Amino acid sequence: MHVRDLGEFQLIELLINTIERRSTGQITNVDTHLKFASGDDAAVWHSLGGTEILATDVLVEGVHFDLATVRWRDVGWKCMAVNLSDIAAMGCVPRYAVVGLGLQGDLIVSDLIEMYEGMLDACNQYNCRLVGGDVVSSSGFFVSVSMTGIGVRDENGYDSYEAVLARSTARVGEQIAITGHIGCSSGGGKMIRDQLKFDQQIMSHLKSTHFRPIPRIPEGVILAKNAVSAAIDVSDGLVGDLKKLCKASEVGAVVKSNKMPADNFLRDSFPNEWMNMALCGGEDYELMFTASDDVIETVTELMEIPVSVIGEVLPASSGVNVIDDDGSRLDIDQGGWDHFSLT
Amino acid sequence: MHVRDLGEFQLIELLINTIERRSTGQITNVDTHLKFASGDDAAVWHSLGGTEILATDVLVEGVHFDLATVRWRDVGWKCMAVNLSDIAAMGCVPRYAVVGLGLQGDLIVSDLIEMYEGMLDACNQYNCRLVGGDVVSSSGFFVSVSMTGIGVRDENGYDSYEAVLARSTARVGEQIAITGHIGCSSGGGKMIRDQLKFDQQIMSHLKSTHFRPIPRIPEGVILAKNAVSAAIDVSDGLVGDLKKLCKASEVGAVVKSNKMPADNFLRDSFPNEWMNMALCGGEDYELMFTASDDVIETVTELMEIPVSVIGEVLPASSGVNVIDDDGSRLDIDQGGWDHFSLT
Repeated sequence: MHVRDLGEFQLIELLINTIERRSTGQITNVDTHLKFASGDDAAVWHSLGGTEILATDVLVEGVHFDLATVRWRDVGWKCMAVNLSDIAAMGCVPRYAVVGLGLQGDLIVSDLIEMYEGMLDACNQYNCRLVGGDVVSSSGFFVSVSMTGIGVRDENGYDSYEAVLARSTARVGEQIAITGHIGCSSGGGKMIRDQLKFDQQIMSHLKSTHFRPIPRIPEGVILAKNAVSAAIDVSDGLVGDLKKLCKASEVGAVVKSNKMPADNFLRDSFPNEWMNMALCGGEDYELMFTASDDVIETVTELMEIPVSVIGEVLPASSGVNVIDDDGSRLDIDQGGWDHFSLT
Repeated sequence: MHVRDLGEFQLIELLINTIERRSTGQITNVDTHLKFASGDDAAVWHSLGGTEILATDVLVEGVHFDLATVRWRDVGWKCMAVNLSDIAAMGCVPRYAVVGLGLQGDLIVSDLIEMYEGMLDACNQYNCRLVGGDVVSSSGFFVSVSMTGIGVRDENGYDSYEAVLARSTARVGEQIAITGHIGCSSGGGKMIRDQLKFDQQIMSHLKSTHFRPIPRIPEGVILAKNAVSAAIDVSDGLVGDLKKLCKASEVGAVVKSNKMPADNFLRDSFPNEWMNMALCGGEDYELMFTASDDVIETVTELMEIPVSVIGEVLPASSGVNVIDDDGSRLDIDQGGWDHFSLT
């Protein structure tokens, strides 16, 4: 059997099963205690110093970005932003990052430095420190980033907010909410690929959403401090990521298409496609979370960006569905981005 | 300017300079304190829980391994072993690892599982836990591993051996020593590439040294507990890695060719090339360290593998040299493996 016959998500499940079947490495010992491993946005453990997490993401030229259309500095920003977003989705704050680079000898040095400038833009903005890496020769260009984070501390430096935002803790009856707006990254990607022209303000908005996604670090901290139950960052598409959250939590969900927080830039520029972009586009890096009405009200007040309630957690038997204004089910062809079913 | 004009090590220096020039991410705060970053085998910081480190290494098919000659399980072992060796070179013990994978859809799933079995062989043997990763589509196959480690603890779980084994702390007058034997990995690589035939026992020894390198975790712990000053793992070749250690410590060194711990398997099978393999071959993953005579005597008694004194730390003005029996300087063409000067 080939990887493409399995698809990305079944492949990952198989790898996780292999790891769980074989692992004998100590999970608990005197100094660290693994809380949960593969299957969330990051691995989490408790050390004597508190909660610690480790995330990793790889970006490949020609798959995740196209050097014909993206600036090197934006490549650097995105490599860090996707990892920072994983840290945000756990309700933690970033600490240290290492970078693995695969490149060819004919790469222009100043381009690479520009990419590092972009990585450092993101690191500096979110108080992360780039501490090392590895550079190797490779026919294709790729960047692999691994990032540590720690649990949110109170003003005395203590790790008093023990809850990290797992995917697996959504409860039936909770509301499903999401930060910010969605779909614009996907719209920006299409605009660039197809060389579409819109009003200057729209173009600049779609472009920056696509190339400079904002990791929701302060918002994740607010969610963690207010004991939100479950969260995930929307990287592969809202529906696809909701399915992952539901699977991990053993619940179902319904989301309402008329509640999708797509902004007018997106609706105006893609009148026929904006809904699909919002539901399935991916790379939004907003935080989707589940909580009670009260908690959602509290966190909404604390955040500087909008929060939208888009649906509800249901029993697993209900499946994961999107319904429109009159309650009829939308047919979602493509539940998100799958690396291998598409190749 | 292109990357190949700079070469790997100058490129890395330039990237480190960029990072240092731009970084504003907090280095010290209430919960973690960065001890040192890029430029050693791993980044090191102190958290409330003690010393923590993070290493990363990328292996690329066609550069670091050739799937025509290596078994998948051995690829997996090696990916972990090179990171475990970085942890060993810091005198720490491994904790958690994440894996970034780039692969094509036509990869056979059972081959990939075999690779994971090899990674888990190594993780289980050295008490490391594989906790997550990322799988992406890529035209070339590569594996990026990042691994955390912690400082050696005493029997009560306290981080009482504060010294990690840095590259930058070698002192003039210390002896230079190395664990185990060197050169066999390079010999094994040549044997396989050139399809050479030797006695069965020799072939099996060279092959296993090349494909299943042994990270010196227990030996690194012994070095850390006995306050060895400086250490590095020999991955790019003894002379090349010694140059890195000397540069970081601002010292010079002399090593004696007649003290090279090359075993008889290597000497017998490569009578003309063994010395070059030992000095410049790379991928030995032995620990080279500097210490006083007394400390070397102590750690030699504690280790289950041989330790050889091969030279001496000199002032920086002496440079880094290899001398033969009669004290004349050997001309070392190639000081180690450089990814880009060779491409």
